[in-house]
Amino acid sequence: MEINYPAFGRASVMIDVFKVELQNRRIPELHPGEVLVEIEAVGVCGSDTHFYEEGVIGDIIVEGPIVLGHESAGQIAAVGPGVDPERVGTRVAIEPQKPCRRCEFCKSGRYHLCPKMEFYGAYPIDGSFADYAVIDDDFAHAMPDEMSGEEGALIEPVSVALHACRRAKVLPASKVLIAGAGPIGALTAQVARAFGAIEIVVSDPIENRRRFALEHGATGALDPAVTDLSEYGEYFDVFIDASGNPNAILSAIPAIKRGGQACLVGMGGQTLEVPIALLQHREISLTGTYRYANTWPDAIALVASGKLRVKELVTHRYGLDQVGEALMKTKTDPLAIKTIVIPAMTL
Amino acid sequence: MEINYPAFGRASVMIDVFKVELQNRRIPELHPGEVLVEIEAVGVCGSDTHFYEEGVIGDIIVEGPIVLGHESAGQIAAVGPGVDPERVGTRVAIEPQKPCRRCEFCKSGRYHLCPKMEFYGAYPIDGSFADYAVIDDDFAHAMPDEMSGEEGALIEPVSVALHACRRAKVLPASKVLIAGAGPIGALTAQVARAFGAIEIVVSDPIENRRRFALEHGATGALDPAVTDLSEYGEYFDVFIDASGNPNAILSAIPAIKRGGQACLVGMGGQTLEVPIALLQHREISLTGTYRYANTWPDAIALVASGKLRVKELVTHRYGLDQVGEALMKTKTDPLAIKTIVIPAMTL
Amino acid sequence: MEINYPAFGRASVMIDVFKVELQNRRIPELHPGEVLVEIEAVGVCGSDTHFYEEGVIGDIIVEGPIVLGHESAGQIAAVGPGVDPERVGTRVAIEPQKPCRRCEFCKSGRYHLCPKMEFYGAYPIDGSFADYAVIDDDFAHAMPDEMSGEEGALIEPVSVALHACRRAKVLPASKVLIAGAGPIGALTAQVARAFGAIEIVVSDPIENRRRFALEHGATGALDPAVTDLSEYGEYFDVFIDASGNPNAILSAIPAIKRGGQACLVGMGGQTLEVPIALLQHREISLTGTYRYANTWPDAIALVASGKLRVKELVTHRYGLDQVGEALMKTKTDPLAIKTIVIPAMTL
Amino acid sequence: MEINYPAFGRASVMIDVFKVELQNRRIPELHPGEVLVEIEAVGVCGSDTHFYEEGVIGDIIVEGPIVLGHESAGQIAAVGPGVDPERVGTRVAIEPQKPCRRCEFCKSGRYHLCPKMEFYGAYPIDGSFADYAVIDDDFAHAMPDEMSGEEGALIEPVSVALHACRRAKVLPASKVLIAGAGPIGALTAQVARAFGAIEIVVSDPIENRRRFALEHGATGALDPAVTDLSEYGEYFDVFIDASGNPNAILSAIPAIKRGGQACLVGMGGQTLEVPIALLQHREISLTGTYRYANTWPDAIALVASGKLRVKELVTHRYGLDQVGEALMKTKTDPLAIKTIVIPAMTL
Repeated sequence: MEINYPAFGRASVMIDVFKVELQNRRIPELHPGEVLVEIEAVGVCGSDTHFYEEGVIGDIIVEGPIVLGHESAGQIAAVGPGVDPERVGTRVAIEPQKPCRRCEFCKSGRYHLCPKMEFYGAYPIDGSFADYAVIDDDFAHAMPDEMSGEEGALIEPVSVALHACRRAKVLPASKVLIAGAGPIGALTAQVARAFGAIEIVVSDPIENRRRFALEHGATGALDPAVTDLSEYGEYFDVFIDASGNPNAILSAIPAIKRGGQACLVGMGGQTLEVPIALLQHREISLTGTYRYANTWPDAIALVASGKLRVKELVTHRYGLDQVGEALMKTKTDPLAIKTIVIPAMTL
Repeated sequence: MEINYPAFGRASVMIDVFKVELQNRRIPELHPGEVLVEIEAVGVCGSDTHFYEEGVIGDIIVEGPIVLGHESAGQIAAVGPGVDPERVGTRVAIEPQKPCRRCEFCKSGRYHLCPKMEFYGAYPIDGSFADYAVIDDDFAHAMPDEMSGEEGALIEPVSVALHACRRAKVLPASKVLIAGAGPIGALTAQVARAFGAIEIVVSDPIENRRRFALEHGATGALDPAVTDLSEYGEYFDVFIDASGNPNAILSAIPAIKRGGQACLVGMGGQTLEVPIALLQHREISLTGTYRYANTWPDAIALVASGKLRVKELVTHRYGLDQVGEALMKTKTDPLAIKTIVIPAMTL
Repeated sequence: MEINYPAFGRASVMIDVFKVELQNRRIPELHPGEVLVEIEAVGVCGSDTHFYEEGVIGDIIVEGPIVLGHESAGQIAAVGPGVDPERVGTRVAIEPQKPCRRCEFCKSGRYHLCPKMEFYGAYPIDGSFADYAVIDDDFAHAMPDEMSGEEGALIEPVSVALHACRRAKVLPASKVLIAGAGPIGALTAQVARAFGAIEIVVSDPIENRRRFALEHGATGALDPAVTDLSEYGEYFDVFIDASGNPNAILSAIPAIKRGGQACLVGMGGQTLEVPIALLQHREISLTGTYRYANTWPDAIALVASGKLRVKELVTHRYGLDQVGEALMKTKTDPLAIKTIVIPAMTL
Repeated sequence: MEINYPAFGRASVMIDVFKVELQNRRIPELHPGEVLVEIEAVGVCGSDTHFYEEGVIGDIIVEGPIVLGHESAGQIAAVGPGVDPERVGTRVAIEPQKPCRRCEFCKSGRYHLCPKMEFYGAYPIDGSFADYAVIDDDFAHAMPDEMSGEEGALIEPVSVALHACRRAKVLPASKVLIAGAGPIGALTAQVARAFGAIEIVVSDPIENRRRFALEHGATGALDPAVTDLSEYGEYFDVFIDASGNPNAILSAIPAIKRGGQACLVGMGGQTLEVPIALLQHREISLTGTYRYANTWPDAIALVASGKLRVKELVTHRYGLDQVGEALMKTKTDPLAIKTIVIPAMTL
């Protein structure tokens, strides 16, 4: 493959806690099976913010310069050896993972559990707050022309929600309770609705978020400071936590029906004092999600079909030289839902 | 329980092929666990018409007078011993089956396969083209006040479609092909959509039916005389036959993806020359449906939630003294979709 | 049905904590669908002992005289109205539950979750430490002639193990870890082996139990005081707790593979401080079991086929006048595994 | 990686119908991720014989020289770039497929359905009737020292049987009917038993095969010329066809229970006149298998654990210069069950 892409591109590099720097970086040579994507839009995830503030999430420690950002979309600018050159120019949503493809998890359709996974924007794998990013060809998922770059970037949080609804066994006519109405909670409500759920109750203390959820999939919304979930009795088929808040989880579990499901998406503490006798007595299954697998094509199709309306999540936009601000926006502004970085805004 | 219901009610009794007669019949004493329902609306099913014309379906032979009709809804007029008297006055959609509740099929959640099933309107079990019908309490499913009797009656064909979509493993983002756009095909398209399917292509030679399907859930419609399904290649995750037409089935199977599903709802011939090597090579599963189980509550909820719009299916209405005409309407009028008998129309 | 059974039979009635009394009781008239079983053998369950010692388990409180015992088998002595009289003389294993058969749980194959369940030997429903017991016809499961009454009684704990292996998704070639090698743990090891598991490691501090488990299904056994489960790394597909011991559970969870299952059968405390981040990161599902459903026919077939060897569990036998001793035996004698009450031993 | 393996090895090359020739062939350079296996044993499959006789199977046409053989095991002699050099010397069972690892089928755990699959011994991909064969590292599955090369080669037909039992949903306590007691039928009986099936009836007209099956997993065997399957009524949970014989399939289907499974493993004709109304009425699922996926590790574990006894299948052995005879042995000798080619027998 001839090199038909620029030698350099900008990248917003986190060099220390609370410190990002715009650098010009040499674009690497593409390996077989890889593509180079010119980034149109990158969403800010809570985990990006957490890395920026703390330099660590769980056992992933930022030990050197790292480009954050793993919710992105763009256009294929070049392809590596073995990739169909016709793909150049294709607009794609990026699935930010590189599994080994050879372990038992990869071969049985659960590549997100691959012990050798390289995940974008998790040290030491660079992410996509940059002009260009490299990804394996089949993890650059084509999106329809009418889908915007922002929508493409939002396929990542949609995937989180989609994987959660699958793991939590949301079914047509399910009654679903969701704790937390941030971007993941709000998208989970929409995805649950697309799955055929008929009752989708969102719990969040922030009024603005409840209203947004009600406009996007939820059939009910409650303020946990006001409404006691015990009023529901054994009511919900499925509970999905998108809050990471132990109190939210513990107050929700008694509202789950016999034989129901509890699925934790939000990251909270290391341990949780679970009402285990209740889980046993009602045969409730408790599990969590870790990223996603095999979600992008379906997530793109659901957005393209109009079943999911995602673009309204975006409340703020920044250029590549404002990644520091972008990283803190959702944290500091209660009216912010989703912040997007658009490299082309500032060239 | 005191007897607080009339001693007699009208019933439209099939006494011979092409011959129904309005009779006054003594309303039976209720057994423990039964309820008496005053019928508001009864749909005409193709199987009713078939019994009326032929006196037989498969191994069910009409050997004496029989009240046809198994798609019905109404209001509970009285309850038998052991039933909560508060149920009197409740409007209900009737699930027209009485399984034994004790065999392995009943106890494992597949009561529709119960060898001792008594099914409404299948000789010798009387159905509901009548002022009153008796059913076990838990097969009289409460419906919300805002649901009309016609909608309640349509819960039966919705259940056929719901059971088909479950058996056929329709999933969010599925691509679904449906052969036949009569009431069952049209409802299956809607139910598939409610399940999250993103592409729902209906095949039917009748233009009117294609148009109706496109207005109610289908994303595409084709005339099999014009469009060759082989154009699709290996495309659909799921194929559901609601036509009973061997050619429709055989032309659809090659359009199913590897690992896909074919589910036959429509009754056709006794045998079918299946492309078995193709099923093996692609690991396609072929199955059929037989009535339904555990569908009424979900079907009612899906209609009540607005996810399914069923009332527009009804094109013609008749009184209890016109059941003979009602039984032939769909057969003789290509513009008829669903015919309903309303006992109260003629008292 | 004519009354062809004796008017009276003995029953060992718990009249207070630590107090049982042999009484002659009038055998009740059989309702429609019921059978009368002359009891051959009744196993003592830990829950019987717990009721005997404490008068309470969870929210079930013994508030009056109660016949304990729910692991029983015998011969049908009489049948109630509507039951095939040919069943008299049939030897049966008793499934000690009476669900409502009408709720959503009963109709979807999960009758053990029925909110109206009447369960044998749980106040106020009498059990089978007695000469005779009454049960619904279809819960009196025929067993082959060559199966002993003791084996028939052991179908109940086999059912607990079978339900656990189903819920825990034990599959052919699974690696299974079981905490606790009492009767349930030991039977779970055997059932897991019958399910095709290839590695079945049992953890128990009592040497005698480990040895028994190794002779009956387990491929490995460890003493938790000596062996640290962390040596295994992420190893087991399935963990089943049959100990109710929080430490046993907590030390086992880190040994579960990504995508694995943890299923709690043993009753322990009300709450447990679960390593929730680990469950999320590895997408482990945690659930419990509550009794069983649809297990008796399969459990009988597995024992009859020789896949399960259960009779060796029985270490002690008592007559109906020794139920008090029988109830305390397993608790006080570390060499006791299963204690059986045989009414005919003392007449 | 330095080249530490011989430059040449023998291969038995099919150069025309009924014509194989022993050739010395240059051993190719290993690509990244590949290993070179020195072959210990190769089983003869019916499809090898079919290619040898007809030069074609379905749409796979032998258009040039080809090394047949896809049931093999041996020892890793060398590793390509990127493969752990410690693997040299490891004895392995070869899974003879090379999927693309990038399509939707590969990434969702169904790599056997990959449209770009390269399968051993299917023109133009060379197989393993040879001294050496090349395969991707992760498709060379380590086997325990105590497992012989012949057992390793038999992991391939065990995988066929394992995949069939999974697809056919064989469960603990299932009743299974198997048509055909050749190597696949006989192994399917064993695998079904390892899955916990309690009744496994094999149907085959050849007495020798019935006897072998009865000694290896089957609980019953019948001669279809003598016993009419209709005697069973609706009896079997699962029917697996390993005969490819239309009569065998059609006589078996009516013996399947409601809600049961029919799975066709044997290749027969292109079409089959299926009793479709019966499939619908009983909600029987009909499907087939195509090769296998994710079976080798489990198949090896099941053989190593002693749950499957496979070595007794081998009735005849040949050297690499006798592949022509080996290919015809099972066809011409009714007492032959499995024929193995052992390269080292003649050097």
